Amino acid sequence: MRASAVPARAAPSFRDRPRSDDVAAIRRIVESTGFFRPDEVAVAVELVEERLARGIEASGYHFVFADDDEGAVGYACFGPIPCSLVSWDLYWIAVEDAARGRGLGRELLGRAEAAMRAQGGRAIYIETSSKPQYDATRAFYLACGYRLEHVFADFYAPGDGKAVYSKRL
Amino acid sequence: MRASAVPARAAPSFRDRPRSDDVAAIRRIVESTGFFRPDEVAVAVELVEERLARGIEASGYHFVFADDDEGAVGYACFGPIPCSLVSWDLYWIAVEDAARGRGLGRELLGRAEAAMRAQGGRAIYIETSSKPQYDATRAFYLACGYRLEHVFADFYAPGDGKAVYSKRL
Repeated sequence: MRASAVPARAAPSFRDRPRSDDVAAIRRIVESTGFFRPDEVAVAVELVEERLARGIEASGYHFVFADDDEGAVGYACFGPIPCSLVSWDLYWIAVEDAARGRGLGRELLGRAEAAMRAQGGRAIYIETSSKPQYDATRAFYLACGYRLEHVFADFYAPGDGKAVYSKRL
Repeated sequence: MRASAVPARAAPSFRDRPRSDDVAAIRRIVESTGFFRPDEVAVAVELVEERLARGIEASGYHFVFADDDEGAVGYACFGPIPCSLVSWDLYWIAVEDAARGRGLGRELLGRAEAAMRAQGGRAIYIETSSKPQYDATRAFYLACGYRLEHVFADFYAPGDGKAVYSKRL
């Protein structure tokens, strides 16, 4: 029998070293989700710019990228919490809208966890909003083995609490 | 009857604008407590240096100082949490060992709270260690009307959790 006429998607490749074209890629990825405000997009872009300018130690920003043939289609950004010997923060994780539904987010998160663990991380913390808009985000973290530690009510704004998830490594 | 021969202490005065001599004063205050490691003292000093160099908006560091005739004998440092419209962090509060027992810590905290409230703050968060060494610190926050929101176990190191206190303004 012939193989399907639908072209197979190439499996993504992964890397941890940012490149200069990731600045535009991260902007495209984050904007494509339709989820972030312009000031939030600007923060996402600043993190990779700071990493490119200052290096991994000075910036404290670690990355994992998922690439297709044309560049990054998803990424995670994370780093050690300054005053802790063992705890790391996941700052950002996003997959380009057109690349969703293939488990890329879960694979990026798993690779980020492995990188943290290899560098002495023993726990990961993730902060997100308690608003209904973030229901799917929070469900994703629970599905990936995170547990809800606490909700700080009205933290970001009245009616917008901060939910903190953690996972032991 | 004669008044006591013990000279009355002048009431402290308060100010919110840092001066260049506060760099040395903060080092002296923080070291006098016998509570902080050298790297923690360095962080305390860096906060006021950054405020003096970059100003209040760029640094995000707000202060209240308690002065006697010779300069600062206690201070609090606090600032708005970047991604929040309403929440502030108390970064540091310390009173010189020789000036303790006069309620200066409580007065500094009250003045810091009033300053946050006046600038739109509606909640204050304080993070501290769950270790027994910090029992008196945590009792102070409870006595000042803070409530324990959550303890993140093993956050700073194995056996050293992060206790988070909050107070509505």
